Amino acid sequence: MTIDLDAFLSTGARGMRRSLIRELLKLTSRGGIISFAGGFPDPTTFPVEELQEVSRDVLADQASRALQYGITEGDVRLRDELARWMAKDGITANRDQILITNGSQQGLDIIGKVFLDPGDAIIVELPSYLAALQVFRTYGVEMVGVPQDDEGMETDRLADALAGLARQGRHPKFIYAVPDFQNPSGITWTEERRRALLQLATQYDTLVVEDNPYREIRFEGSAPPPIYALDGGARTIYLSTFSKTLAPGLRIGWMVAQEEIIAQFVTAKQGMDLCSPSFTQAIAAEMLRRDILYRRLPNIAAVYRRKRDAMLRALQREMPSGVTWTRPEGGLFLWLRLPEGMDAEALLPQAVEQERVAYVIGSGFHADGGGKHTMRLNFSYPSEDEIDEGIRRLARLIKRHLPLSTSSTAPRTTVSD
Amino acid sequence: MTIDLDAFLSTGARGMRRSLIRELLKLTSRGGIISFAGGFPDPTTFPVEELQEVSRDVLADQASRALQYGITEGDVRLRDELARWMAKDGITANRDQILITNGSQQGLDIIGKVFLDPGDAIIVELPSYLAALQVFRTYGVEMVGVPQDDEGMETDRLADALAGLARQGRHPKFIYAVPDFQNPSGITWTEERRRALLQLATQYDTLVVEDNPYREIRFEGSAPPPIYALDGGARTIYLSTFSKTLAPGLRIGWMVAQEEIIAQFVTAKQGMDLCSPSFTQAIAAEMLRRDILYRRLPNIAAVYRRKRDAMLRALQREMPSGVTWTRPEGGLFLWLRLPEGMDAEALLPQAVEQERVAYVIGSGFHADGGGKHTMRLNFSYPSEDEIDEGIRRLARLIKRHLPLSTSSTAPRTTVSD
Repeated sequence: MTIDLDAFLSTGARGMRRSLIRELLKLTSRGGIISFAGGFPDPTTFPVEELQEVSRDVLADQASRALQYGITEGDVRLRDELARWMAKDGITANRDQILITNGSQQGLDIIGKVFLDPGDAIIVELPSYLAALQVFRTYGVEMVGVPQDDEGMETDRLADALAGLARQGRHPKFIYAVPDFQNPSGITWTEERRRALLQLATQYDTLVVEDNPYREIRFEGSAPPPIYALDGGARTIYLSTFSKTLAPGLRIGWMVAQEEIIAQFVTAKQGMDLCSPSFTQAIAAEMLRRDILYRRLPNIAAVYRRKRDAMLRALQREMPSGVTWTRPEGGLFLWLRLPEGMDAEALLPQAVEQERVAYVIGSGFHADGGGKHTMRLNFSYPSEDEIDEGIRRLARLIKRHLPLSTSSTAPRTTVSD
Repeated sequence: MTIDLDAFLSTGARGMRRSLIRELLKLTSRGGIISFAGGFPDPTTFPVEELQEVSRDVLADQASRALQYGITEGDVRLRDELARWMAKDGITANRDQILITNGSQQGLDIIGKVFLDPGDAIIVELPSYLAALQVFRTYGVEMVGVPQDDEGMETDRLADALAGLARQGRHPKFIYAVPDFQNPSGITWTEERRRALLQLATQYDTLVVEDNPYREIRFEGSAPPPIYALDGGARTIYLSTFSKTLAPGLRIGWMVAQEEIIAQFVTAKQGMDLCSPSFTQAIAAEMLRRDILYRRLPNIAAVYRRKRDAMLRALQREMPSGVTWTRPEGGLFLWLRLPEGMDAEALLPQAVEQERVAYVIGSGFHADGGGKHTMRLNFSYPSEDEIDEGIRRLARLIKRHLPLSTSSTAPRTTVSD
């Protein structure tokens, strides 16, 4: 370098860290490693034939529109189709309440840009989505973590956190929640917890950011309403995406909020990239118009249900006593807890190099740096055989490192939590 | 609203302004208005048949890759093809020196995020690209404007500006330049000015951001080397895009810089949107591999040359004495100067409502708020007939408002500058 790069970096850039997941993905793309680390959908779920048909038709019928610049808000037809799509979940929104983004991640960055100043407080779950924590961190905020149990965020603890901030004269900008099949834990919030969250958000006059990319991938049980549906969007901002249902390679996400908030988001997105690709938006609109996603969803959920079941069976069979895990009713991930005192981060190099199996360490998902004995396991991308073999490898590694007090390898019924 | 939105906005968001151009575009999409305001390419230049073929092949041959998440850096094949593509311009870069972005605009935002803190100084041309000024402004920087003549930025004035900042103990983060067929002025920097810029950037140890979306659309004359080629990328960051050549609806832009700088940009983009769409990247890579763009460029330039000629002829025929304009050798825009004292902004409502013709006011492109008597005219989108009629309308309006001293409507040879 002829320049001293550090001298040119912004304060934010000096604090930026590469995503642990993304860096790991590079490692684990080497042959022979079974990776539970990513969050990729199974490519066999991609609607390839339908996309061929729709791409051809879009270029035949609307090329001069689909290849031109679009408005920042996003393709009008896509927004209208999304309004129709979300109605099935009780979300009522007109096109002016919807902004198309490059995946949900851009939505999170827009939220950071529009709402966050250095020193602001926000509230997140413990654990919470790693890439959201990462982007909020670039805005220099303080993240207050509230623990989760198997019903969602512990709203009693949320009340304490809000009261504590209020006593300091602080007003958190928003509460960030992933209520359905949470990344990373797989937990789904009960309707009671959702209502309690809204009641507290109203009492303390803060916003709710509901990040909901997995909702449509439900295997069983009944779906509580989206938080957005429960408050009619009065103080909730809703994010979703087609990355887990249609295909991530289209990079279509969207945000829903009151018109006045969306107008602010639009202004922010103008500066960020003017508009999302018209071509992929036109394709997504046509996929919805033809009800292709609607017809495919049951099959997609069936694929991931089989994989979750394979992982649950393998865990039950292989894991020693003292290890517990969640039993998600949908989504792409489950959450594993080692006995207290074990360190998932310290084990990772051996996992990758000796056992050739990868996971994401739980501490990355903890705004407070906790969760050292936890890890996230993805079941959507590996095959059922790989899940079987990968869990065997992981269990072998864990057994080798069990603290003496819990090193019984006798079979027992593992309690999921 | 049940919430007081202003209380939640970040400092940056409170200062964000919607793009004048984008807002105007909404107005001028009404029927009957001839718009010289946009910057859209002519949809007849879109390679529709080739895109149909390539989309079909990409989905047939590489669907599981083209529909999946990609790495943040961008599609490897596309980056390799871009390295090959840019070699014709003397730009030497390997794939690790290239980052794929959602159009050049995302590149500008990444530059802001990685380099700019509130209060930093940067240097821009007078006039300069409006959407760049807009995004840099959201980072709270001071923009120091340096005037332009028909050879590019006046580098003597740049030396003064740099010396002035140095005397205040200030170190500008970068100099932002659009050296080829500049948006808005249509001016191309001479090679001498490019070299003088680099010499000053080295002397004062600052970076150069070279935004070069129009370079490939050259009608005549010979092309000076890109600034990046002149310093081998030692302190230059190069931005380009396929929005003006292949199609804006693919939203493919890219950045070129030293590997260490690109690594910082990648980290920033991870938080912004994880990755650009794999599908459109795979399509663009294949368009390059098949030399489709290379074969089409002469025809694209021919289309815009005819339109520029139509606009120059109409201006020559219609405009009164005292009005001058640039004669760009390429690109999409020319720049019109009214007699001093006239105000393009004050005229705009009458232009749109009475004469039904639109342009962008020049002051929007001036970091110092100057340029009130100037306007940007786009010739790429309207048809030749619309150009003819639109310039007639614009001239009629200008003649009605000429100051008395210059209100001669007698024909004269207009000096272009």
